[in-house]
Amino acid sequence: MAATLQDVANLAGVSVKTVSNVVNNYTHVRATTRTRVQGAIDQLKYQPNMSARGLRSGRTGVIGLAVPELSLSYFAELADAVIKAAERHGMVVLIEQTGADRKREIDLLSSPRLQLTDGLIFSPLGMGSDDASHLDVSYPLVVLGERIFGGPVDHVTMKNIDAARAATELLIARGRKRIAVIGAHEGEVVGSAALRLQGYKEALAAAGLPYDDELIGYVGLWHRHDGLMAMRNMIERGVEFDAVFGLNDTLALGAMRVLQEAHFKIPDDVSVIGFDDLDETQYSLPALSTVDPGRAEIAETAVRVLMERINGQTAPKKPAPVEYLVDFTLRERESTL
Amino acid sequence: MAATLQDVANLAGVSVKTVSNVVNNYTHVRATTRTRVQGAIDQLKYQPNMSARGLRSGRTGVIGLAVPELSLSYFAELADAVIKAAERHGMVVLIEQTGADRKREIDLLSSPRLQLTDGLIFSPLGMGSDDASHLDVSYPLVVLGERIFGGPVDHVTMKNIDAARAATELLIARGRKRIAVIGAHEGEVVGSAALRLQGYKEALAAAGLPYDDELIGYVGLWHRHDGLMAMRNMIERGVEFDAVFGLNDTLALGAMRVLQEAHFKIPDDVSVIGFDDLDETQYSLPALSTVDPGRAEIAETAVRVLMERINGQTAPKKPAPVEYLVDFTLRERESTL
Repeated sequence: MAATLQDVANLAGVSVKTVSNVVNNYTHVRATTRTRVQGAIDQLKYQPNMSARGLRSGRTGVIGLAVPELSLSYFAELADAVIKAAERHGMVVLIEQTGADRKREIDLLSSPRLQLTDGLIFSPLGMGSDDASHLDVSYPLVVLGERIFGGPVDHVTMKNIDAARAATELLIARGRKRIAVIGAHEGEVVGSAALRLQGYKEALAAAGLPYDDELIGYVGLWHRHDGLMAMRNMIERGVEFDAVFGLNDTLALGAMRVLQEAHFKIPDDVSVIGFDDLDETQYSLPALSTVDPGRAEIAETAVRVLMERINGQTAPKKPAPVEYLVDFTLRERESTL
Repeated sequence: MAATLQDVANLAGVSVKTVSNVVNNYTHVRATTRTRVQGAIDQLKYQPNMSARGLRSGRTGVIGLAVPELSLSYFAELADAVIKAAERHGMVVLIEQTGADRKREIDLLSSPRLQLTDGLIFSPLGMGSDDASHLDVSYPLVVLGERIFGGPVDHVTMKNIDAARAATELLIARGRKRIAVIGAHEGEVVGSAALRLQGYKEALAAAGLPYDDELIGYVGLWHRHDGLMAMRNMIERGVEFDAVFGLNDTLALGAMRVLQEAHFKIPDDVSVIGFDDLDETQYSLPALSTVDPGRAEIAETAVRVLMERINGQTAPKKPAPVEYLVDFTLRERESTL
């Protein structure tokens, strides 16, 4: 038989209410009492009923994390970082995959399943600025990414424009003048692709280099395969280029594969740079230059900000939503040296 | 004000009990009544309180998935497949990272956090056969991987020995005689490394090739970096080899990077094969031959078996634990052709 709250109370010689106060970590319990109750809990191997605890305290100890899909390496490494950060706050993480689908993202925001969580870290890839009103929810929510700015909730993101400009400037500093872009989204005005393309354009303009739409490789998704297809298409069109900027690492790695098949030497004939600093970029041949967008800091900030919102839920006045921008770091490796 | 069960009952003209029966998907509700109640639920935008629902039905709708870490690509792709399979059963997935640490794995099995889930899919990497008794838990549990066989619970795993033998046989069929192994674990007798090494030895023996411990590259973990270090070490020791079998893909990719740095031509000088069929193996240069261990089927089987256990919890007699072995597929690519 599992020990009950009553068993613990009997052994510790206190009331059930006192045991409950200790279990729920309330502060108005004397240290000596707390120690005695904890001793009884340990001795009886008492385990609080989390479900019942959820009803009483309104807390589940679970954070939701909604990402497009874990098979995209960026989101796997982000989820890893979020789970580790959550653990430091004593929280566990429930992961939802939305497949970058706008409707699924919107549905998720009002899903009753979120009652299983104390709050949500949400990385939309299908919703756009017009959907900002859907973020006006009754539970703690932190939004990641570039799809929605100025929404009614806290937002943690990276310096996409600045980082993409720095990546492009590195290629220009290495003497490159015809820089292909792999991964643009046709007609996109919000989102990582649009912002990174803007950074690219700014770097060209600052260096007095012309912008040529011939050099822009459009894709649907940001998988390796998309990078491979866009690069192959550009080579087949006979476009001349001396550098490639993959708007993320997997695109750059897919492009690099095609370049080498086509007997371009990297970096002698073509310099290549990516974006994300995935673990595998250190081991490709050549090792891929890239930008670390501050993924670890994004995960830590998102969890910290969410926990502040969760802990502040009962406060009479809530602070206004805040936008957090984390810093990036350029990582030059063999593909541009 | 959020709608209550009573509001729905009033609007539909039925009892609260009937609404509850519909919400909990009980079968003894007439179709016309169910439609009327569902209409009222939709109209009032009623959302069941999942926490309260958990207390009544004993179900949370959540599956736990415990893996070493998502930054290991195999587990990211496995988690992706488990989340998709769970979704088809109407379940969401809470992910725990154990860091391949035996103590954390054992602690997790008795964590009160598991009360938030209806059952657990558990992929241990630190626990061994001596720890099988820890798997004797009171909740539905399905174990993945090779660390514990013959435990008291359902077990879904891959044909490690056969698949590794097939990978080695492919190298032998390509005329290779000095096949290096990257990724063995010193002194290991259970686990993927030991089983795959056994498959390698069986293939050598069947072909009349000698086993040479010089050719075995021992590592701690199975990250790219470990593959790189073990391969570098073997080259520095002056060991002669004409093929490399990476016991997983990331090890093989790390090794391939070192081989190319050292000016070995792949596959002309050295054939390379991996294990896992990660997405990125199609895009490396050369594309990496590998074995698909049946990851998608492992995920689907694990979720299906777990759901059967969850749904059968109230049955008077529980079926005995079953071991499920999924089939593998050899994927030959450029690195061995």
